[in-house]
Amino acid sequence: MKMMIHGNRLRQSFPFTILLGLFGLLSLTVNAQTDISKGIFAKGQLGPAENFTGKAWNTGLVPQDSTLTTLVGNVYFEPGARSNWHTHPAGQILIITDGAGYHQIQGQPRQKLKKGDVVSCPPDVPHWHGASEKTGMQQLYIVPNTEKGIVKWMQAVTDTEYQDKKK
Amino acid sequence: MKMMIHGNRLRQSFPFTILLGLFGLLSLTVNAQTDISKGIFAKGQLGPAENFTGKAWNTGLVPQDSTLTTLVGNVYFEPGARSNWHTHPAGQILIITDGAGYHQIQGQPRQKLKKGDVVSCPPDVPHWHGASEKTGMQQLYIVPNTEKGIVKWMQAVTDTEYQDKKK
Repeated sequence: MKMMIHGNRLRQSFPFTILLGLFGLLSLTVNAQTDISKGIFAKGQLGPAENFTGKAWNTGLVPQDSTLTTLVGNVYFEPGARSNWHTHPAGQILIITDGAGYHQIQGQPRQKLKKGDVVSCPPDVPHWHGASEKTGMQQLYIVPNTEKGIVKWMQAVTDTEYQDKKK
Repeated sequence: MKMMIHGNRLRQSFPFTILLGLFGLLSLTVNAQTDISKGIFAKGQLGPAENFTGKAWNTGLVPQDSTLTTLVGNVYFEPGARSNWHTHPAGQILIITDGAGYHQIQGQPRQKLKKGDVVSCPPDVPHWHGASEKTGMQQLYIVPNTEKGIVKWMQAVTDTEYQDKKK
């Protein structure tokens, strides 16, 4: 009798444990392949095509003002997306909070970026930044001393430049 | 015969599916209760007891310099930990990247903070920030215009102030 009860319970709970098992595998998969597009901040607005190649989503976090004189925001670059070449009159700080990408200062090798990396770019030096080919990038930007200006946009980053084929 | 095979398979796979099921529940639990202490950046150094109540771990990300004039770093506040009251000669920006906590400007109500929140504190105004009682907080700080100074430390935040019992 006990065996029968056990058998019945086993059969009844079998689909449920299978379901839980699949859930376990699914959770593992989700953990391993985090969705980079779901960042800490709102996704924001699509950056204009004249300044970006591919899709870059910008959300402002601290607006320009005369007290803190510091502009802060977040950009999510979809895989393959990058900014045009550009300069900041007072420089820029980038903080990578998720994913992977690149930063390049004109005349220097392309630099790989990953979650936790921090970049300082000097004033008036042309640079570009963006996601890697296959993984997006979540990036906080800090523009200091905004009384000197914010950004001067330049030409697009070509595929050859992006892929760093000269190296 | 088919039924027997099915029965055997069922019995053999039962412990495995139970294990997978438990794994599923565990993964869900881990997802729901992320370890706030494991942030994007290095944990860094323990803040000195004369400036902090409880354990606050600081890691510098952008050092003070004369070009960007902007200091950036990350603090992980353990549950219950908070800064002393203090002022910044040029103000401060806080960006909460994980967990939960509080920020209070002197003379104003205590403000709750959670992942994704951004705080701007004006120059020379006493304030404090820290984790909630039960959940730690990961916080980026930006100190602009460091040529004006970084921080002036004041008295500790009492338990009464921390718990905001006057409200």
